[in-house]
Amino acid sequence: MSDRIASAAVDGDRLVARLARLAKIGSSPSGGVTREAYGHHDVEARELVAGWMRDAGLAVEVDPAANLIGRRPGPSGRWLATGSHLDTVVAAGPFDGAYGAVSGVEVAAALRGVESMEHGLLVVAFANEEGARGTDGMVGSRALVGEVGDGELSTADDGGVSLDERLIDAGGDPGLLADARWDVGQIDAFVELHVEQGPVLDEADESLGVVLGITGRQAVDIVLRGTPNHAGTTPMHLRVDAMAAAAELVLAIEAMARDGAVRVATCGHLHVRPNVRNVIPGEAFLSAELRDDDLGRLAEGRVLVEGLVAEVDRLRGTTGELTWGQLVEPVDAHPDVVAAVQAAADASGRPWRTMWSGAGHDAQILGRHVPMGMIFVPSIGGVSHAPDETTDPEHLVLGARVLADTLVALDGRGLS
Amino acid sequence: MSDRIASAAVDGDRLVARLARLAKIGSSPSGGVTREAYGHHDVEARELVAGWMRDAGLAVEVDPAANLIGRRPGPSGRWLATGSHLDTVVAAGPFDGAYGAVSGVEVAAALRGVESMEHGLLVVAFANEEGARGTDGMVGSRALVGEVGDGELSTADDGGVSLDERLIDAGGDPGLLADARWDVGQIDAFVELHVEQGPVLDEADESLGVVLGITGRQAVDIVLRGTPNHAGTTPMHLRVDAMAAAAELVLAIEAMARDGAVRVATCGHLHVRPNVRNVIPGEAFLSAELRDDDLGRLAEGRVLVEGLVAEVDRLRGTTGELTWGQLVEPVDAHPDVVAAVQAAADASGRPWRTMWSGAGHDAQILGRHVPMGMIFVPSIGGVSHAPDETTDPEHLVLGARVLADTLVALDGRGLS
Repeated sequence: MSDRIASAAVDGDRLVARLARLAKIGSSPSGGVTREAYGHHDVEARELVAGWMRDAGLAVEVDPAANLIGRRPGPSGRWLATGSHLDTVVAAGPFDGAYGAVSGVEVAAALRGVESMEHGLLVVAFANEEGARGTDGMVGSRALVGEVGDGELSTADDGGVSLDERLIDAGGDPGLLADARWDVGQIDAFVELHVEQGPVLDEADESLGVVLGITGRQAVDIVLRGTPNHAGTTPMHLRVDAMAAAAELVLAIEAMARDGAVRVATCGHLHVRPNVRNVIPGEAFLSAELRDDDLGRLAEGRVLVEGLVAEVDRLRGTTGELTWGQLVEPVDAHPDVVAAVQAAADASGRPWRTMWSGAGHDAQILGRHVPMGMIFVPSIGGVSHAPDETTDPEHLVLGARVLADTLVALDGRGLS
Repeated sequence: MSDRIASAAVDGDRLVARLARLAKIGSSPSGGVTREAYGHHDVEARELVAGWMRDAGLAVEVDPAANLIGRRPGPSGRWLATGSHLDTVVAAGPFDGAYGAVSGVEVAAALRGVESMEHGLLVVAFANEEGARGTDGMVGSRALVGEVGDGELSTADDGGVSLDERLIDAGGDPGLLADARWDVGQIDAFVELHVEQGPVLDEADESLGVVLGITGRQAVDIVLRGTPNHAGTTPMHLRVDAMAAAAELVLAIEAMARDGAVRVATCGHLHVRPNVRNVIPGEAFLSAELRDDDLGRLAEGRVLVEGLVAEVDRLRGTTGELTWGQLVEPVDAHPDVVAAVQAAADASGRPWRTMWSGAGHDAQILGRHVPMGMIFVPSIGGVSHAPDETTDPEHLVLGARVLADTLVALDGRGLS
């Protein structure tokens, strides 16, 4: 096809209007959008998007894992896939997930006029990316690659309902979950378009991020045990204060990342006992995570954290206990997909950079099985998972156009 | 009277047995004693002790503030007072408060045989010393000196019940609260016997503490506001992490006391928001307290804490907000009472020291109006406000004997 017909065919005004319409589903008068996976707002959003898929000439199905999939075959019998998710965290913004899913539909509509496309197109709204009600997230994408276990299906979430039941509520079929699995050998690429959810592009005044890979993440829970005692009668030199020990650890874990040992390190959760003003805290429960693009550095980070806990115990007299939680390995984007995104970004004439994704995405799951890439647009102020998450409409349209050109390039036709 | 007849007359075995019996009221199979003020366990304990008061030849009344008072007049028309409280914190030990109240009754029984006593004797079990269900404590002793306001009577506690109603439950009469006020000019001394609740005597292998005064206490609440954000996508140098800022403050406030600016400083309570592993904390709510024996040093401590919050704000970009809470002024024991306790401790032949009380007591309230003193016995390991609070029975008996001798000395007869 000729130069950038696909991107020119993307209806930018309709994309922005559809995102605004979608954001009304689950919106709260107090601000923010809440569409917890499998709930009625999530289902309502999926039904709206399913209609747009049909309008774009896609055959629509809800698979046994409750993924919403729009499909249009191509002459080669092989597939290119795109999409994201429609579920949100509690009090989310309008674009996390929704942007990539709706853009996929708009791109499918734009590519309908491209008769030369050899590949078929899959547009997916993955189920439960965010991990609603205390569940592990990315359930839909994991089901597509056979990574949801039976135990996970039967476990009750924070609402007391099992994943089995949730899937049925949203049109899935837990008994047929194995049938949801994709034949990944038939899929030549998966490209996910997403808001950055961080401040890098916005700070640098750049319009596009070409994602080189998705960060790895190591979770850890640390319990520090000291001696609870009377805050008035216990001299300072006889205290074993679990809160003070936790404070040392919070600063030391932060310093690990500031010193460059891992990309970022965060202590997001702390609970102390008994947590009253006039008692020296006897126990502190700290939850932290390390993220890095390199698995070896995450392993080194684990050793560093173990050393920090031992050092705090030695200095403070506490007894520290570490429990290593979920390890999500970093995943590289595929060089061919990166090259296609770079070419499309270049052709847009707008400033772009290569970067890593600091957040997890469904692309991280699929990227271990099919060639994967991602395209980022700027999040204003880097805000996400919050009601005031937003992106310039011009950037929303730009990202969808670059997605269209990327898919055409990956189809093997190049950009000119 | 001749040398130490009063102390010799204290029935030590009965004292220890009565304390054990009292500790059964409100005891839990999972450990600890819970007698929340005005509740049915508290009332049951008071009825038991009222019977022992009558056996000791005291006239018993429950005053409008629900203080349990045993009284025996003397020829001079003037009074010496002793006692403590029978209510406990949740999951307390057996001796905090109960020890001083029951010992007062035993000493009254012992002094019955001392015909030469000029003073009348008041033995008091003060109501709600501990501050049950989120109330301010020391309600009974404050009522005796006119320091309970109307607003306090009508305020609902954590159980949704007002102090008015609680007082009626325990035999008090809120409408007559003003009548509970003592004519303090008729009282020549108040002496409170208590377990130390700290480790000083036990660490030093000393048997008695002669209290020079009761520590002052300044409470403070600090809110630190940062920027909540995604823990994966936000670079370290762009974070304003409220938990990390709170950690700096916890260590700096601790260091104030370690460096000697105030006697002790404690950060007992911390809550962060949103308090989940993968979000940089946006707000931290820290509650702390400073204690010192000198009001001027507490004032200097306030200035230091204000400076620390400003410094953390400057370094971290947070916005800190301080709210100064209750200030309890330090109170000196009266020199004449201290001298009487010292003489009695000396006569016991056991090792003793002068010391300040790091905990608050009803004696702190009365001490601003009548000559006050306190006697401490060792808490093993310094443990208090916890189920494993304990004191050697030999020390329990010793303290009661020293209380008896102190009261006789204060009656004007001396020890030999």
